[in-house]
Amino acid sequence: MVNCVFCQIVNKTKPAYLIYEDKNFLAFLDINPRVEGHTLVIPKKHYQFIYEVPNFSQYWQVALKITKAMRKAMKPYFVTYIVHGLEVPHAHIHILPRKVNETEFIPAVKYFSRVKMVEIANKIAQALKNKQ
Amino acid sequence: MVNCVFCQIVNKTKPAYLIYEDKNFLAFLDINPRVEGHTLVIPKKHYQFIYEVPNFSQYWQVALKITKAMRKAMKPYFVTYIVHGLEVPHAHIHILPRKVNETEFIPAVKYFSRVKMVEIANKIAQALKNKQ
Repeated sequence: MVNCVFCQIVNKTKPAYLIYEDKNFLAFLDINPRVEGHTLVIPKKHYQFIYEVPNFSQYWQVALKITKAMRKAMKPYFVTYIVHGLEVPHAHIHILPRKVNETEFIPAVKYFSRVKMVEIANKIAQALKNKQ
Repeated sequence: MVNCVFCQIVNKTKPAYLIYEDKNFLAFLDINPRVEGHTLVIPKKHYQFIYEVPNFSQYWQVALKITKAMRKAMKPYFVTYIVHGLEVPHAHIHILPRKVNETEFIPAVKYFSRVKMVEIANKIAQALKNKQ
């Protein structure tokens, strides 16, 4: 969809701090991160809600793979998932690796520099590669 | 685990508004519901976090099955998932079927009578059975 920001990231017409890509799915850092490493996993094909995505199990397997890489790379206290879906109407799973003082349901938006965002994305991406 | 409230529900030593049960998973209404139909899906075996559950894909397939039954039975505006996991240290997926005026990330806890809770649980359980 032309006006969909996530479709633009899929089509490489909009940049993103990429973490993972396969035939059907893409993962990148949320540009309004609520924790360090806040990641979005999306299907490449446009669906509004994740329960409409035909390969739902495969979708969550990608989320699990990223969770494992985060745990290896960032040693979070725990990891949470949020699937809401109204802000951007392109299915997305939020993955939030939490520090011990970040236990609230929805932490406030944080700012990280571009350099820091690249560093975080690379750290998770590298742990994913080492796993494979 | 003896002191785990969800293990007690699995072992039938604690009551719950049951919606679904199979060999590995159980679903029931959250007793502190944030929306009508707020459901928890748990593995019968005790794990603290959902990413530790070995049959992770199967787990989400159960959540999807319940989502579809909710959409059929309750006609929600949309359905959201929250996986946090610190309150009760037994893995659980929150499924929240939302009305059009319930779009906030975490709605406030609501009260429904026991009769109403039974009615809601039965409505979703019935839609699950009709599906199979």
